Amino acid sequence: MQKKIPYRTYLREDQLPKYWYNLRTVMKEDVPPMLNPGTGKPMTFEELSAVFSEECVKQELDSATEYVEIPEEVRHIYTEYRPSPLVRAYNVEKALNTPAKIYYKFEGNNTSGSHKLNSAIPQAYYAKKQGLKGLTTETGAGQWGTAVSEACSYFGLDLDVFMVKVSYEQKPFRKTLMRVFGGKVVASPSDTTEAGKKILEINPATGGSLGCAISEAVEAAVTREGYRYVLGSVLNHVLLHQSVIGLECETALKLYDEYPDIVIGCAGGGSNLGGLIAPFMRDKITGKANPEIIAVEPMSCPSFTRGSYAYDFCDTGRITPLAKMYTLGSGFIPSPDHAGGLRFHGMSPILSKLYHDGYMKAVAVKQTEVFKAAVEFAKLETILPAPESSHAIYVAMQEAIKCRETGEAKTILFGLTGTGFFDMTAYESYLNGTMKDHAISDEDIKAGLSTLPKVE
Amino acid sequence: MQKKIPYRTYLREDQLPKYWYNLRTVMKEDVPPMLNPGTGKPMTFEELSAVFSEECVKQELDSATEYVEIPEEVRHIYTEYRPSPLVRAYNVEKALNTPAKIYYKFEGNNTSGSHKLNSAIPQAYYAKKQGLKGLTTETGAGQWGTAVSEACSYFGLDLDVFMVKVSYEQKPFRKTLMRVFGGKVVASPSDTTEAGKKILEINPATGGSLGCAISEAVEAAVTREGYRYVLGSVLNHVLLHQSVIGLECETALKLYDEYPDIVIGCAGGGSNLGGLIAPFMRDKITGKANPEIIAVEPMSCPSFTRGSYAYDFCDTGRITPLAKMYTLGSGFIPSPDHAGGLRFHGMSPILSKLYHDGYMKAVAVKQTEVFKAAVEFAKLETILPAPESSHAIYVAMQEAIKCRETGEAKTILFGLTGTGFFDMTAYESYLNGTMKDHAISDEDIKAGLSTLPKVE
Repeated sequence: MQKKIPYRTYLREDQLPKYWYNLRTVMKEDVPPMLNPGTGKPMTFEELSAVFSEECVKQELDSATEYVEIPEEVRHIYTEYRPSPLVRAYNVEKALNTPAKIYYKFEGNNTSGSHKLNSAIPQAYYAKKQGLKGLTTETGAGQWGTAVSEACSYFGLDLDVFMVKVSYEQKPFRKTLMRVFGGKVVASPSDTTEAGKKILEINPATGGSLGCAISEAVEAAVTREGYRYVLGSVLNHVLLHQSVIGLECETALKLYDEYPDIVIGCAGGGSNLGGLIAPFMRDKITGKANPEIIAVEPMSCPSFTRGSYAYDFCDTGRITPLAKMYTLGSGFIPSPDHAGGLRFHGMSPILSKLYHDGYMKAVAVKQTEVFKAAVEFAKLETILPAPESSHAIYVAMQEAIKCRETGEAKTILFGLTGTGFFDMTAYESYLNGTMKDHAISDEDIKAGLSTLPKVE
Repeated sequence: MQKKIPYRTYLREDQLPKYWYNLRTVMKEDVPPMLNPGTGKPMTFEELSAVFSEECVKQELDSATEYVEIPEEVRHIYTEYRPSPLVRAYNVEKALNTPAKIYYKFEGNNTSGSHKLNSAIPQAYYAKKQGLKGLTTETGAGQWGTAVSEACSYFGLDLDVFMVKVSYEQKPFRKTLMRVFGGKVVASPSDTTEAGKKILEINPATGGSLGCAISEAVEAAVTREGYRYVLGSVLNHVLLHQSVIGLECETALKLYDEYPDIVIGCAGGGSNLGGLIAPFMRDKITGKANPEIIAVEPMSCPSFTRGSYAYDFCDTGRITPLAKMYTLGSGFIPSPDHAGGLRFHGMSPILSKLYHDGYMKAVAVKQTEVFKAAVEFAKLETILPAPESSHAIYVAMQEAIKCRETGEAKTILFGLTGTGFFDMTAYESYLNGTMKDHAISDEDIKAGLSTLPKVE
């Protein structure tokens, strides 16, 4: 008799992983190194340490340590909201009349409302351990800024958040939430940095951009004694921290002798997807299993599906190192879209390499389809999903429908990265029928890619 | 050796209670019956059935059945978010340097963001079972309206929500959330009911009130074939459904051989408090244990601490039956306060009777103190509490501080009824220092009580 699988599986506290898994160590070819745009040479520990905390840089450059110990202090805070539930989506299965078994890992049960806290905590912890005074960061949609505010509050670190001005004005509640945790939030571009002042001089009415906010946050870190910058996605050490998501999934699924045939995650910079797939991609690379791995991105910012695999800046201000990644060009302007967390021109170098080498596929989807799936999911599963997460929901539902058609009882796992409580304007526009899908023309793509730097 | 108590205890799905507990059955004297204001006689099953579903009326009048079976369909939906976690507040204990052991039951892990779903689900279920087409209700703060929207979405019931106009305008996102689940939300007073039209004629600019919204919702139910009205607090059957909270606490605490010395809950209409204390109050009445039970109310609406124990209307429109309760008078106007869910002039008749008979105490607290505790709690516990819930947090912290002073290692349990994601305006005003405490003068109290009806 098959074991009865509960609706939500909560692992015990002592089943929380003690190590993060470094996916990079199992890759047949290593990720190309970040380059110094001035010299064209790989970024050194010293160069990176001026921007990030030393431990994060060590992890960023580490392609040898397979399992990295999670510090006890970090595990302690993880236990306040982890292990996060693995949910069997019985209601979705029933509604779609599919033989597929659908699971999702829900990361929204913390105040930041998303998986971002998984990396914010260790990044703040390492900064504190290094004796730093504070951190700086940027935020677009606001989940990352909230997570860092929470983490800095735990460790008594000062925090300056540069929030893209248009988001700052459109999402005042996000700003308040960060303030609850003591984060100081300024609208970017601001007059608190040289980078910001320069941009305001040229265009005083600008609504800002993620690229500009990154420039300001980096400047605010490197020009002040005892400050460093933190980033919530893209980088190798962020994916390392997020592996806790996938490792918990693996442990929970083993309880039921389950293994996913398909693993699905939304992809903006790649932190959630990279973390979710970590153990399953390891098995795929080593030949132990062969799950299908699908990245879902918005049609409005299709880095994987229409970008180039090339060295590019991580910001539009072109002050960061160069990373080899799928990119639409740092000058690419994504069309307006409600999944703010997925509007990055580039992609994690680890995921980019894996995609390039054929280990995973990617699909780009329309936001109206995504919101249709989100509303259906909310009604069935008593969770209001974030727009970002809903990209994965939509594709999971599509795969489950395919199973209905073929009669295959596939096991589908997807990442439900967060909740949509701060995205009600987006839901409103969907419900009112005013939401549009924004097609990106070949000319837009060409214009973005024309901003790629020349690298020998 | 004492067992290691985890940070969060999630009971297994099969530990979800199979029965609700009817606290009324153990009371030494029964709750005085609701009266028909026209005849002065106890409301009959037939009279109440015109307004509520038959099963809810049966439960409302039932003082004999100690354990009421939770229908399987209701348990199925409960398992999507229950058993809810019982959290050991290690971080709060440490921050307060108290020997007290603090536990809280967290009910915010569902889309409605509060415990309200526990009663919305059975109320919708019974309506469906009775073959009704739809339901009507009112909502102030919006948690109840959201919960009923979710519940009606599950059972395919039509729903009209009358939302107090001032809330409708101040909290547009709450309205959107209800719409996600298919709830039709109108600002009250509206021109869709005679009651609403009458009020608008007299005062076209009114921002509405809970009392007016109740009048409209009841009218919209009784004047349409196949519709009934649902209420989210105060009534006996609502407290019955909410007993699931306390029963789960009891089971989880038993795992660690724990029993609360103090049980604390916020009290507006009493649904959360009545549910949380159910098994502990039972033990207190039967003499099995002697926990201290504390109701926390806002100073701006102090029903227990400054009200009278008297028969009163449940609404300001004076169209409901009369209930014997602690009340400030249906004409009492609470001063502006951010804990919208606690701004009801009356109180659950069951809790009122217990309070009157000396089984529990009540305290009234200032909202600035409450928000100070809320912000501290958020930083320590990675949960942004609702303003309502924060009343209980504040008093729990005060009790823990007393323990520090006396050296007593008391076990404190409080109810964390929900999250504050839709209350950011309140947090903003606290952080900005613009939040005020509103004193209620003796004259205000007298004016409210002067509206009490004369009952023989």
